[in-house]
Formats: sequence, C-alpha cells, structure tokens
Amino acid sequence: MAGYVQDELPPEEVERQRALYVPLTQAVRELVDATIRTTVDDDEIRAVQVEVEELVARLRKSQLDGPYGVRFSRGRGRPWGNPVVGLRNAVSPPVMIQHHPSANGEVWADFHLGAAYEGPPGLVHGGVSALILDQVLGEAAGAGGKPGMTGTLTLRYRQGTPLGDLRAEGWIDRVDGIKTYAKAHLIGPAGVTVEAEGIMILPRWAREAIAKQEGSTPSYFE
Amino acid sequence: MAGYVQDELPPEEVERQRALYVPLTQAVRELVDATIRTTVDDDEIRAVQVEVEELVARLRKSQLDGPYGVRFSRGRGRPWGNPVVGLRNAVSPPVMIQHHPSANGEVWADFHLGAAYEGPPGLVHGGVSALILDQVLGEAAGAGGKPGMTGTLTLRYRQGTPLGDLRAEGWIDRVDGIKTYAKAHLIGPAGVTVEAEGIMILPRWAREAIAKQEGSTPSYFE
Repeated sequence: MAGYVQDELPPEEVERQRALYVPLTQAVRELVDATIRTTVDDDEIRAVQVEVEELVARLRKSQLDGPYGVRFSRGRGRPWGNPVVGLRNAVSPPVMIQHHPSANGEVWADFHLGAAYEGPPGLVHGGVSALILDQVLGEAAGAGGKPGMTGTLTLRYRQGTPLGDLRAEGWIDRVDGIKTYAKAHLIGPAGVTVEAEGIMILPRWAREAIAKQEGSTPSYFE
Repeated sequence: MAGYVQDELPPEEVERQRALYVPLTQAVRELVDATIRTTVDDDEIRAVQVEVEELVARLRKSQLDGPYGVRFSRGRGRPWGNPVVGLRNAVSPPVMIQHHPSANGEVWADFHLGAAYEGPPGLVHGGVSALILDQVLGEAAGAGGKPGMTGTLTLRYRQGTPLGDLRAEGWIDRVDGIKTYAKAHLIGPAGVTVEAEGIMILPRWAREAIAKQEGSTPSYFE
C-alpha cells in the first residue's frame, strides 16, 4: 500500500510532533482568514507578501518530496495532511472526529467554520459541507470495522448552513458484502442542514493487502 | 439579499485589487503546502510560527468584521472569499472556471491539486472532488442563466483521482421549472474519475429579489 507508511513512531514522539505542528498550523489558518478579510493598505499587503514568501523558503529548506501520505503507528493512522482532519493542513478547519466505542460506527465532531468556508454570503459553501460529510462517512465506516473508499456520495441540502459553530454526526446504516452504507448529517443552530449517504467500498488492492497482513487493519482510507 | 454587495467598483479598480491580492494569496497557499511538508528542525518551526503570528496581527490591524461575502459590480460577481474559486482564499487551489458562451451553461477548468488536497495517499480526497464539482455545477447553472443553490448533489467515484493536473467540466442537462439539473465530471490522466449531478434550486428570497430588481441578475449563488 504505497503511501501508507507504517513508521511505528512511539506514542511520546507522536505527541511531541503534535505539540510542535498544531500551533504552527493554527497560525497559518489564521493567516488564511486574515488574507481574506484584511483591509490594510497596499504597501502593507505587499510587505506581508514578501515576508510570507521568505517563511515559505525557510520551511522548504528541508521538506518531503511529495504529499504527506498517511502514516501509521501501532494501528493508529496519522492523516496529518488531510484537508478535513489534518493537524498539519491549514485548509482543514480542523474537524476533530470523535468515535463512540460501538459496533455501528457512530462518530461525531463539533467544529467552527469561518470566512474561509463561505459560499453564499454568511453560509457554508455547499461543497464544504460535502467535503466534511464525506470524511465523516469514511470515518464512520472505519470506526465500525468496515473501512472503505467512497463509491457513491449523495447529499440533500435541507436549509442553508450558517457559518459558525456546527456539529456533524455519522453512523453505519447497513453492510452488504464489501459495501458499507453510511449516513451522516450536519447540524446548525436551526437543526439538520445537510443529509448525506455514502456507499463505501474497500478496493481490491486494500483487501489483498489486509489479507496478507499479520498486524493491525488500518481503519482509515479517506 | 444580505451579503450580496453591489459595490459597483469600476473595472480598473477590480483589476488593481486583483493584482494586489493574487500574489499575497498565492504566497499563503505555498505556506500551507510547506507547513504540511516541511522537515526543518523544531526551533525553526517555532520561529516561523511566531513570525506567522506577527504577520496575522499586521493584517488584522484593519479588517472586515465578518466573512467576505460576494461583491458585485456591473453584474459580475467577485466571490473572492470562495473556497474553490476565491482569489483571496488560500484554501482554494484556485479553480478558475471558464464559461463557454452557450445556452446550456458549458463551463470548464484546468487546475492543479497538491499536498493540501490529499485523502488516500497520492490521491485527491473524495470530498475535495465533491467540493470542486459542486462549484462547477453551480457555475454551469448560472452560466446557462439558471442560477441556483444546490438542492441535491450526487457523486459517483469511478476511480481514484491522482494529485496533479486535473480538469473539470460542467453543463446543464435539463431545466424543469425552478429546478436546474446540472452535470459535471472530473478528469485525470486516465480519464473521468468522478461524475456529479446536481439539482440546483433558486430559493424564494432570491427569486423575489431578482423580480424586484431593475438591473442585472446575479448569475452566482454558490
């Protein structure tokens, strides 16, 4: 499984990296927001741009050749580059998904969406709702022991989702062979705003890799 | 229509702002990528973090109270905070959507997705494909003179979409009263990877606002 790196970092090293990267990523997230909303004068915009470019050069002095991939240690994935949950990805809100210890894959997340996720004025972009719910569906399937990649995703938009504090919930509806039918929804201050259903399928290469593997099954494919 | 600001900026002012903000946003986009991929040492990570926080403070000295909204001048929208197409939003790749001058709303875009959009290793996150295709469907409906907000969105994932250079295409399939059925797909090096269908509906408040309005109809609601 190329890109699924079993690096087996010890838990204390994972925690050390988390403590290092979370504050940097949060600062970059704030910079994304400020870049959308700033009204400072043109010279200041240009000056900030030059300084951002210099910081990029400093970070790039040593870097991965490509994207982050998904790294594993002791059966737990670290999808830190993921655009929904990735703690090193400033594109992510981030959405920190919690797992119920249940057989039907119940998961939930409370999170905040600001200016960077706006579609219609004041409302969450419909595609951002889809992005988040796709992740929630994938994690529900994985939490229920039925990891898979999205085969079909259907979203029904019941009302506009206001920017601000939101909640997402997901669960496994039913399982049929290699197909897992997962459901999820997004909840705003006025109730459910978007409903999602996903058919998650474990691809053949992943099934074969898992069959060969003695150790833990990755619960995470999205 | 709160948040739809008809500021009627003259074209030369729009161009001036574009020339100012595009390079800043591109620098921030690079910073997002470098934050995911950097392997510089811990002290340097912490030093960069402090400098990013200082830049955020400089940009926030004067800023909009809330999100950017959508601003209009002479009938053309400037959704510059949009997470797919927004030229001031570093969350956006960006996807620059081109419009055919046709009645059935043909639109297309060529774009590049890097580390910030990764789901499974080396592949585009399924939800990112949904995010982009939702925007393409909305713009197809608008380009065909049938603007709407997404009512239902269905995505079929045919194969993994590799990170890199991609193309999206959208068009109006059919119109039935206030519902516009739009279709779109994502194309990678090995052909179509994701197919999308959206039912776009113009909400009542928007229909009423348009009916009252003498001037141009906004073609953009997503």
